[in-house]
Amino acid sequence: MSVTAETRPLDLLADFPAIPEGWAYLDTAATAQKPRPVIDAIHRGYAETYATVHRGVYQRSADMTYAFEAARERVARFIGGKSEEIVFVRGATEGINLVAQCWAGTHLKAGDRILLSTLEHHSNIVPWQMVAERVGAQIDVVPLTADHRIDLHAMEVMLTDRHKLVALAHVSNVLGSTLDARRAAELAHAVGAKLLLDGCQAVPRMAVDVAALGCDFYVFSGHKLYGPTGIGVLWGRYDLLDAMPPYQGGGSMIDRVTFARTTYAPPPGRFEAGTPHIVGVLGLHAAVDYVDGISLDRIHAHEAALVREARTALAAINSVRLFGPDDSAGIVSFAVEGVHPHDVATILDEGQVAIRAGHHCAQPLMDHLGVPATARASFAVYNGLRDIEALVQGVERVTRIFG
Amino acid sequence: MSVTAETRPLDLLADFPAIPEGWAYLDTAATAQKPRPVIDAIHRGYAETYATVHRGVYQRSADMTYAFEAARERVARFIGGKSEEIVFVRGATEGINLVAQCWAGTHLKAGDRILLSTLEHHSNIVPWQMVAERVGAQIDVVPLTADHRIDLHAMEVMLTDRHKLVALAHVSNVLGSTLDARRAAELAHAVGAKLLLDGCQAVPRMAVDVAALGCDFYVFSGHKLYGPTGIGVLWGRYDLLDAMPPYQGGGSMIDRVTFARTTYAPPPGRFEAGTPHIVGVLGLHAAVDYVDGISLDRIHAHEAALVREARTALAAINSVRLFGPDDSAGIVSFAVEGVHPHDVATILDEGQVAIRAGHHCAQPLMDHLGVPATARASFAVYNGLRDIEALVQGVERVTRIFG
Repeated sequence: MSVTAETRPLDLLADFPAIPEGWAYLDTAATAQKPRPVIDAIHRGYAETYATVHRGVYQRSADMTYAFEAARERVARFIGGKSEEIVFVRGATEGINLVAQCWAGTHLKAGDRILLSTLEHHSNIVPWQMVAERVGAQIDVVPLTADHRIDLHAMEVMLTDRHKLVALAHVSNVLGSTLDARRAAELAHAVGAKLLLDGCQAVPRMAVDVAALGCDFYVFSGHKLYGPTGIGVLWGRYDLLDAMPPYQGGGSMIDRVTFARTTYAPPPGRFEAGTPHIVGVLGLHAAVDYVDGISLDRIHAHEAALVREARTALAAINSVRLFGPDDSAGIVSFAVEGVHPHDVATILDEGQVAIRAGHHCAQPLMDHLGVPATARASFAVYNGLRDIEALVQGVERVTRIFG
Repeated sequence: MSVTAETRPLDLLADFPAIPEGWAYLDTAATAQKPRPVIDAIHRGYAETYATVHRGVYQRSADMTYAFEAARERVARFIGGKSEEIVFVRGATEGINLVAQCWAGTHLKAGDRILLSTLEHHSNIVPWQMVAERVGAQIDVVPLTADHRIDLHAMEVMLTDRHKLVALAHVSNVLGSTLDARRAAELAHAVGAKLLLDGCQAVPRMAVDVAALGCDFYVFSGHKLYGPTGIGVLWGRYDLLDAMPPYQGGGSMIDRVTFARTTYAPPPGRFEAGTPHIVGVLGLHAAVDYVDGISLDRIHAHEAALVREARTALAAINSVRLFGPDDSAGIVSFAVEGVHPHDVATILDEGQVAIRAGHHCAQPLMDHLGVPATARASFAVYNGLRDIEALVQGVERVTRIFG
């Protein structure tokens, strides 16, 4: 294949001031480093244009409100939704909790069932456990295939008309395995269930169009998309959001308050009580512009190439066990025989390679894999072959030390 | 009185890059502008030291975790609490909702009563209405005195042993009236009720010591304390927090997750599911250092002097009606006879004076005052007599235009 603008490897390290030369940052699945346009947008928001939104009569506040709502429109366009379907939340965790509380909490009753999978992040398990306990619903768990994908054949067999909600990771935060989300939506809808997708690891790694996927709710975190901390997105189909009761009480989410009776604003305001994370929203806008400017297809191809390199090189080390499918999206989990993943990560850190070791907030998956933890390397637009080489050299050093 | 370092007016405008020369920013009760040390701390967090917290094995993440928890200790010291009693939330609104959901939602039952006051912000009304409706509790409303303070004599008469919670603004966001919080705590505790204080307008304006006040819960927002957006604090007495169920489900708030059973972490982790607003916490630390470096006593004296000037000058204009007590804390609400507050604010904006006009998320108070809205000027460390002069000239222009 010839090298064109579309196939040339990304070389964007210079955009990321917090990554010093020689540091292989391979923990993007936990949180992404920030490019200058995002850092600059945040700086401008605090140091030049700062004001509150939605309430001020003066020009500065009107301008900030315009910028804030422009960010909502930009996010909507980014994922193929409508702007009134975009609810700004703290992060994906809060987005899932909001749906659990306001949708599941009012639509599920005793005897209803929720379908999850073995590989879900705790944030896509615990909120459902909490609401299931409250309303008397049951949780079922879709198993994984041999190559660590959510088993949609098993899911098809398991689904019944008692299932009201299916909640799945679009991309696994441990294994990088990608869900066939369209098929999952068809299966869920065939029994009348809604589908929520946890898009934390998908949105930074592939083009996402919620309309094309056919899901009902979609959540992701800004900080994993090269954006600021403390901001995330819940997208929901407007008719679903419109039928949901409010989330938190406070300013902005009301229509009229008296001590006798309070009436609520339409979505998305109904779910955004209090002064929002104004500058976080501006930073998220810049992050969306940044990844769209590169193109998600190029990012996906870049990360896929890094995954191939990493898996091939790690597989060549005798004592390494790889988890997840070969085409995992930007994330490679592995174990070194006889060495605790924390020791792997500590030795890698001595060589300026930052990976994550732990259960990755996915203890049921660890139980399934039969390990207490994995070592995980995850890739982003700032990584290159140099980082894979550093990773592999570090793992080889681990095997020498513990060999 | 002689001018000493302690009594000299503050002149800190140069610390605030987003306030251009000639702009009188008098909307700090909505949100405060940010001083350079806060902007710099945020910039460093994203552009130099960025990493996730609590999970990374590598040095950068360990350092960030240390900085994150150091901020928690700093906030605790700032308000006289313990670090394990500090829960990071999105803002005061979320803090109140958390207490409403996790404390009131589990401790109140049908027939119990909650005591609020006429001057509360919607964020200190609606969450209680929502939980009261759910558990079958009733809400009572303490009236105001003639000079627009919460009437503690009336409160003493109203309180019964059915009252389980009293929730009051430490400083009114509309009137600037300051609660005698120690007395309120004594009265609440005398009937066995807990006291929650909404400290949004108090914490930036006066020294607060939760232990000395004797309250049970205290909430405030970072962005009103010269800090970042999207971060706030809930302080709660540890024994109360420890007896509360979790808030949102997700990573960090768990001890152990299986599909059969999940156990939860102790406070404050139990209430902080998901990746936190890491850089927001660092910025909040810088904001606390900034105001403590000036001293809250000096800030309070400075704002009190501005309030005196503003009230005196505005009272001299025939058609102006002032709300709130003469010693209001940094906030002056007023009306111009025959002119809608929005028109007042719009004309002031033409003269580079930014005030707020509206119901200030306090519609029940507006009903009590018999107005649909007020004009509100609020002061901060960056304001000076020049801003009061611009305000008064603007109001005089309003009276000429509408006279």
